[in-house]
Amino acid sequence: MVRDLTHLDETGAARIVDISGKEETVRRAVAGAVLHATPEIVEAIFGGTLKKGDAIAVARVAGIMAAKKTSELIPLCHPIPITKIGVEIERGEAPDTIAIAATVETVGRTGVEMEALTAASITALTLYDMAKALDKSMTISGVQLMEKSGGKSGDFKRVQS
Amino acid sequence: MVRDLTHLDETGAARIVDISGKEETVRRAVAGAVLHATPEIVEAIFGGTLKKGDAIAVARVAGIMAAKKTSELIPLCHPIPITKIGVEIERGEAPDTIAIAATVETVGRTGVEMEALTAASITALTLYDMAKALDKSMTISGVQLMEKSGGKSGDFKRVQS
Amino acid sequence: MVRDLTHLDETGAARIVDISGKEETVRRAVAGAVLHATPEIVEAIFGGTLKKGDAIAVARVAGIMAAKKTSELIPLCHPIPITKIGVEIERGEAPDTIAIAATVETVGRTGVEMEALTAASITALTLYDMAKALDKSMTISGVQLMEKSGGKSGDFKRVQS
Amino acid sequence: MVRDLTHLDETGAARIVDISGKEETVRRAVAGAVLHATPEIVEAIFGGTLKKGDAIAVARVAGIMAAKKTSELIPLCHPIPITKIGVEIERGEAPDTIAIAATVETVGRTGVEMEALTAASITALTLYDMAKALDKSMTISGVQLMEKSGGKSGDFKRVQS
Amino acid sequence: MVRDLTHLDETGAARIVDISGKEETVRRAVAGAVLHATPEIVEAIFGGTLKKGDAIAVARVAGIMAAKKTSELIPLCHPIPITKIGVEIERGEAPDTIAIAATVETVGRTGVEMEALTAASITALTLYDMAKALDKSMTISGVQLMEKSGGKSGDFKRVQS
Amino acid sequence: MVRDLTHLDETGAARIVDISGKEETVRRAVAGAVLHATPEIVEAIFGGTLKKGDAIAVARVAGIMAAKKTSELIPLCHPIPITKIGVEIERGEAPDTIAIAATVETVGRTGVEMEALTAASITALTLYDMAKALDKSMTISGVQLMEKSGGKSGDFKRVQS
Repeated sequence: MVRDLTHLDETGAARIVDISGKEETVRRAVAGAVLHATPEIVEAIFGGTLKKGDAIAVARVAGIMAAKKTSELIPLCHPIPITKIGVEIERGEAPDTIAIAATVETVGRTGVEMEALTAASITALTLYDMAKALDKSMTISGVQLMEKSGGKSGDFKRVQS
Repeated sequence: MVRDLTHLDETGAARIVDISGKEETVRRAVAGAVLHATPEIVEAIFGGTLKKGDAIAVARVAGIMAAKKTSELIPLCHPIPITKIGVEIERGEAPDTIAIAATVETVGRTGVEMEALTAASITALTLYDMAKALDKSMTISGVQLMEKSGGKSGDFKRVQS
Repeated sequence: MVRDLTHLDETGAARIVDISGKEETVRRAVAGAVLHATPEIVEAIFGGTLKKGDAIAVARVAGIMAAKKTSELIPLCHPIPITKIGVEIERGEAPDTIAIAATVETVGRTGVEMEALTAASITALTLYDMAKALDKSMTISGVQLMEKSGGKSGDFKRVQS
Repeated sequence: MVRDLTHLDETGAARIVDISGKEETVRRAVAGAVLHATPEIVEAIFGGTLKKGDAIAVARVAGIMAAKKTSELIPLCHPIPITKIGVEIERGEAPDTIAIAATVETVGRTGVEMEALTAASITALTLYDMAKALDKSMTISGVQLMEKSGGKSGDFKRVQS
Repeated sequence: MVRDLTHLDETGAARIVDISGKEETVRRAVAGAVLHATPEIVEAIFGGTLKKGDAIAVARVAGIMAAKKTSELIPLCHPIPITKIGVEIERGEAPDTIAIAATVETVGRTGVEMEALTAASITALTLYDMAKALDKSMTISGVQLMEKSGGKSGDFKRVQS
Repeated sequence: MVRDLTHLDETGAARIVDISGKEETVRRAVAGAVLHATPEIVEAIFGGTLKKGDAIAVARVAGIMAAKKTSELIPLCHPIPITKIGVEIERGEAPDTIAIAATVETVGRTGVEMEALTAASITALTLYDMAKALDKSMTISGVQLMEKSGGKSGDFKRVQS
C-alpha cells in the first residue's frame, strides 16, 4: 500500500509540514552529481597548464550560494539556518566525467538533503554553462543523496552499485 | 587542441560575455530530466484515484519559477526577458520513472538553454522533496538539452540513443 | 493620545526593532483574504468537471512561497525561521467570491502576522492573475488577521461581524 | 459558457503563455488599495507635528521594490522591464482610512497590471506592519485595478461606484 | 608568516566554515561609510526647507533591506537570524560629506560584521544613486567596521585616527 | 541654486523615473574600489605559491552576481538587461591595497553606473569577508565611477588626482 506524500494534506493540498515539535540537532547531508562531457571539456576545466582559470571556483561558488537559496527554489522546503557548506569538484572515474559532491550541515529542526542536492545540481549546471559553447550534448546524471545523518528518521548511506 | 571556455577571459578570469552585438531573435530550448523512483512513488504522485493532489502542479510551478531565477543561480548567465515557459511531467517509459520536459522561449540576444535545464532540474528536485519521506534513494539523471533553436550558433537536436 | 509607531525611533527614523530579549516560543497567525470575481470565474477556477486544472495549486504555492519571502518584501520585518505554512482556498459564501485563509507558525522571537497576511495577499493576487483575461474588475478585500497566538502581546481573535 | 483560464493549457497545466508575437509598446496600469485603520493610526502615520517620521516613505519604497519583484511572486507572470513606478499614499475620504495608488509603466510585450496590484498590496501591508502594535484589526480592501492602457486587449477604466 | 584565509580549505577551495559548534550569543556590529559629494548635494538631501523629501528614508530602508540580503550577496557568509538593524545618516564633519553608521545585532552562532558593512555600503550607494544626476564624481570611502562585540574572537573597537 | 533630486517628485516622494521615452543604446560604466588591508593579507589573497586558492575567483563572482542584483538593492534603480560584466582584481599601487575595477554594459534605456558601483563594492566586501579573521580594521575607499559612456547625458571620465 502506498503511504501518503507527507507534503500534501489529506485533501491533497500542498503545505509546509509542521516541524515545531522537532528537536534542534546537528543534521548533515552529502549529495552527488556527475557531469558527462568530453575529455576535451574535462581538460579545459581542470587545466593541464600552469595558469588555471576560475572555472572550478565559479561552479563551486554557484553551488554554495544555491544551497542557501534552496527554500526559495523548492516550494515546500523550510528555511534553514545552514551552518556549513562545502562543494568538491573532481575528475570522475571515466575521463569524460566530472564528479561533484556537496556537503551541507545545519543545527535545525529538519534535514538538509534538499540543500545538498540543490548545491550539487547547480554546480553541475554551472559547469555545463561554462562549457556549452564546446558541446551542448553534455548530460548530468547521478543527482542523488549519498549520506544523511541527524534527526529522528535515522541515518542513510547509499549503497554503491 | 582544446578551445577556450568562452566564459573565461584570456587570463582565466570569469566574466559575463558581451552580447550587445547579437541580434534580438526568438530563441527556444527544450531540456529534459528523469526521476528514478519506485513504482509506489510514481503512483503516489500521479494518483490512481479520483482525488488528485497538488504534487504535479507544485513541481511544475517550481520549475517555471526556477527558470525565471536562472541568472541568479548560474553566475555567468545573462538576465533574459523570458516570453514563454512550459513544464511537462509524465510517467516515464519504465514504471519507476517520471519524465520531465521544460520548454523556454525568449526574444533576446542569447539562448535559453540554461533556463530550460534549470527548470527541468528544479522540477525533478521538487518531486524528490515531496516523495523523500517514502524513499531517499531516488536518483535524477538525463538532465540534458533536447533541442535548441534560434541564434547564430545553429540549431541543436539531441540524437536519441 | 497617540502612542508611537514602534518601527520608528524617537527621531522618526525607521529601524528593525530589537527582539534579542524576547523568548523563542511557538507563535501562530491566521490571515484571510477574499477575491470578488464573477460566478463564471469562480467556476473556472474550482471546476465542475472531472479534469481539474492547476489553478488552485498554483495560487496555493504562490502564497506559501510568498510567506517565506515576507522579510524581503516588508522592509522592517525580521527574518523568521518558519516551521509551518498552509493555505486554504475555498468558494466563499457568495457565489462570486473565493475565500483564502493562510496559517503560518514559527518557533521564534516575534510573531508571524505579516507572513500570514503576505501569503493571503499573494494567493489572492495569483488567482487574479490567472483570471484577469476574463475580467479585470475583480477586487480583493478582507485582507486581515483572523487570529494570532504566542508571544507576550497576548492572543488575538477577530470578532466576526 | 466559461472561457478557459489562459494561464492553463488544454490539459489544465499551468504555463507562462507565449508573448513573443506581441508588440513592444508602452503599457501602463494604476492599481489602488485602502487600509482601514483607526483615526489615531492615520494620525500617527501622517503626523500632525513638525517632525514627520519615515513611515510613509518606508511604505512607498516597499511598494516600489515589490513591483520589481512581481514576477518572482506571481508564478505565471512574465519578467518585465519596468520603465516607471510611482506610489501615492494619502488620507482616505473617511478619517480612519489610508488610500494607496500605484502606477507602473513598461515598454514591453505584456501589461503591468500585476506589478501595480503587487505594489499597492505590499504598500498597504507595510503600513499595517508599522502600525500593528497599535491595532491588529486593521483591514485592507479595495485592492483593484483602476486603469490600464496599452496593448491589444484594449484600455480599462474602473467605473467608480 | 601568513595565516590561512579561513574561508578556504587546505586545498584552496572556498567553503562556508562550520559554525555548528559555536554558541548562540548576542552579537553586535557597527559599520561606517562616508559619501563625499558637494555641499549642494548634501543640502539637497538633508533639506533646509519645511518640505523634506523621502531621500534619507529611502537610503535608510535600502541599507536595512540590504543587511537582510547579506548572505545572498557575500558568497561565504552564513544566513543569520538578524534581531535588530538601525541605519543613521547624518551630515559629516566636512560640509561636502554624509556620514553613515549601520548597527546590526543577532542572537546567533557567528558575527554580523558583514551585515553591518553591507548595510552601510548600500545606504551610501543609494544616496549616490539619488544624487548622481547632479554630480557623478562622488566617492564613497571609509567603509569600515567601527565596533563589534559578542562571540569568542573578542571585541573590536576601531581606533579613530 | 540647488537643482532637484530627480528621483523625488515635486512633493518629495520617491519614484522610479520614467525612461520610456529614452532610446535603447549601448551604455557602459566602469567603477572602482580599493581595499586597504595589510601586506600579509594581500599576499594571502594573491598567493606567492603554486597552489592558488579560490579567493579572487570568489570575490569576482560575488561582484558579477551583485551587478545583476542591483535593482533589488538600490530602491529607485530600473531593472536593466545587462549584456556584459567583468571584474578585475589586482594588487594596488601600495603593497597593502587591492584595486578593483568593474565594467558593466547594457543595451538599454538608462545607464549602468549603479550596476558597476554595486559590483565593485560587493567584490571589495567579499574580499574583506574572506580576510576578516586576519584583520578586522581593513577599510574600503575609492568607491567611485571611473568612466561612463552612452546615453544623452554625455560621457564621463574621472580626472585622476
